[in-house]
Amino acid sequence: MISKQSVSIDLQLLKEKSPLVHNITNYVVMNNTANALLAIGVSPVMAHAVEEMADMTRIASALVINIGTLSKLWIDGMLIAGKSASQRDIPIVLDPVGAGATPFRTQTCHTLINECRPTIIRGNASEIMALVKSGSQTKGVDSTEASKNAVEAAKALARESNAVVSISGEQDYITDGQQVVVVKNHVPLMPRVTGLGCTASAITGAVAAVNTNALEAAAHAMAIMAVAGEMAAEKAQGPGSFQMHFLDALYTLSPKHIEKHLKL
Amino acid sequence: MISKQSVSIDLQLLKEKSPLVHNITNYVVMNNTANALLAIGVSPVMAHAVEEMADMTRIASALVINIGTLSKLWIDGMLIAGKSASQRDIPIVLDPVGAGATPFRTQTCHTLINECRPTIIRGNASEIMALVKSGSQTKGVDSTEASKNAVEAAKALARESNAVVSISGEQDYITDGQQVVVVKNHVPLMPRVTGLGCTASAITGAVAAVNTNALEAAAHAMAIMAVAGEMAAEKAQGPGSFQMHFLDALYTLSPKHIEKHLKL
Amino acid sequence: MISKQSVSIDLQLLKEKSPLVHNITNYVVMNNTANALLAIGVSPVMAHAVEEMADMTRIASALVINIGTLSKLWIDGMLIAGKSASQRDIPIVLDPVGAGATPFRTQTCHTLINECRPTIIRGNASEIMALVKSGSQTKGVDSTEASKNAVEAAKALARESNAVVSISGEQDYITDGQQVVVVKNHVPLMPRVTGLGCTASAITGAVAAVNTNALEAAAHAMAIMAVAGEMAAEKAQGPGSFQMHFLDALYTLSPKHIEKHLKL
Repeated sequence: MISKQSVSIDLQLLKEKSPLVHNITNYVVMNNTANALLAIGVSPVMAHAVEEMADMTRIASALVINIGTLSKLWIDGMLIAGKSASQRDIPIVLDPVGAGATPFRTQTCHTLINECRPTIIRGNASEIMALVKSGSQTKGVDSTEASKNAVEAAKALARESNAVVSISGEQDYITDGQQVVVVKNHVPLMPRVTGLGCTASAITGAVAAVNTNALEAAAHAMAIMAVAGEMAAEKAQGPGSFQMHFLDALYTLSPKHIEKHLKL
Repeated sequence: MISKQSVSIDLQLLKEKSPLVHNITNYVVMNNTANALLAIGVSPVMAHAVEEMADMTRIASALVINIGTLSKLWIDGMLIAGKSASQRDIPIVLDPVGAGATPFRTQTCHTLINECRPTIIRGNASEIMALVKSGSQTKGVDSTEASKNAVEAAKALARESNAVVSISGEQDYITDGQQVVVVKNHVPLMPRVTGLGCTASAITGAVAAVNTNALEAAAHAMAIMAVAGEMAAEKAQGPGSFQMHFLDALYTLSPKHIEKHLKL
Repeated sequence: MISKQSVSIDLQLLKEKSPLVHNITNYVVMNNTANALLAIGVSPVMAHAVEEMADMTRIASALVINIGTLSKLWIDGMLIAGKSASQRDIPIVLDPVGAGATPFRTQTCHTLINECRPTIIRGNASEIMALVKSGSQTKGVDSTEASKNAVEAAKALARESNAVVSISGEQDYITDGQQVVVVKNHVPLMPRVTGLGCTASAITGAVAAVNTNALEAAAHAMAIMAVAGEMAAEKAQGPGSFQMHFLDALYTLSPKHIEKHLKL
């Protein structure tokens, strides 16, 4: 079960084990993603070339695939890494950035889900709804759906894909198709900083590297994001300073902050 | 006409309409560009794959093409997106980063201008001068020409290309080939932060999405940059803190800041 | 010989000459690298397309090749630029990010060393050890070896490649195969910010553009990094604020800071 204590345990495991997390992610967020992982004590690697995907998977403890600035060549790398990770039982997180905005993105997500069998799919409400049959229209990469409207879609996608599905929003919903965990996360500045959803996916991958229960891993990651977000919001004067304080918060985050801020 | 009031009206429209701005831009500045657009209330999308360019144009309200880290594959995407946007009368901003530094860049700009018919071309003095027959030599991507020396070149380029031309520098000059609008913008730290010119182009695209008068849109965008720059400079202790305060300033920017800081 | 005074002389030369440094570097750090060079007074250009590599080399005063997010197309650009720079006696810095983590990276480094003859190779201990016969295993892109363990490997690599080899770590070791210069640099937050090694390589390239003694240039660059790092650490509350203060420190860095902080 998910509790303040279980979040703290995984946070401690991240710092002790410092797992290597392999990210195939988009150009916009690579820097922030790497910094967020380093801040929390995890070792990030960013690599996408087909020539080294199988070798990189061999040394990684988790794989995060994010389709933010997608192109054909990168899909090739994603598929090799994803299949290799799947065969080796390395947890895979898929972030379907902009799914629904264009057929290219939606179809690529379906291919990745079918061929790589991700452990966890983490997106916003629009993206998750676009990946099930009863999909909505996505406007660009920002969600047009409140996360609570997407809970039923998330449960359906979880059952179809056999993955845990994690929806971020004012409330985060994490489901394995049966159970639904809710993490309250009302930090208005967070959607005004690019790539915090991508950071959530990367931290989800990191936690999945130290906790084989995917529902717990996905929920704990969103809990960590929510707590760091609240800590940063207390000091921020806008999205620029929020981003800085958010990295500092990930670095200083401890069980006492989780005790104080987390609302499950 | 451009006035403090007309700038404030467009600023308000950006926040109300939150237009989707499609950016095909360079690796160096993608994060900052996305954050600047989000800070001011606009919805950015970064995408470049030929497979989704026409679909992305269909949902976007403006297209910004920036050739900063140019390569062959990206030119293909730029041309498809640019032609598609041009056919649909979606405003296009071209940022000719490093035009004049290499023939590859200069020729690509000419191709993009001829085939996509940008609404606005925004660059520094060296870049603009490189794109007219009477061109100067560009040293890398930083301008070697004072912006006032390039006014005549800008007017010539505006007439040749039928685009509004916007030159950034200590004073910004914006021209449709006849009229010239001047925005004073003497913030010495701005050239010490990478990608603020690219941010200016992205905000120019955003304003063009809510104001069909291209001369006004281009001038209002530079006015917003100048005011946010002055606000940030009051708090910054160097280029690192300037960048943070600049994003915070875009977020908090209001008519009263425009009233206080803008010098037309 | 390397002294506080010789570091200050090169720092002053950087500001006076503002050399153009051509970077072919990875997606994760491009923004930070460009900002670090601008902060210290240098003019960065980021470009990788084969179509413009020879032209870009013609106007640059140094070339920095960093294999962080390597792919086949980029290797082509690196080789053209590297051979062109080598022929023109422009100093080349190679940053072998993740060498040893995959055969693709190790082999690419060997090719670049053989065909481009870099002036300086700057990496962490694991990377340097992976490039000599008596190599260790690299885990991702973070070093698993203390820098002092790699000194013998560095001397061997320097002799094999005829390059100065610079190892960053708690102590930085810079060697031409005979002499070894040590720069003390114990700032615990530095490994928690992505890309500071890459920034060190870029600044190494910048100093090499104003000082033809490669051992001095490499050591002076690490000295600048160490001093700016100590200055930033005095103000930082975590890796987010460290990164901001680090750029501010590079901007304000003066001989009196070098006098106060540098430990050779």
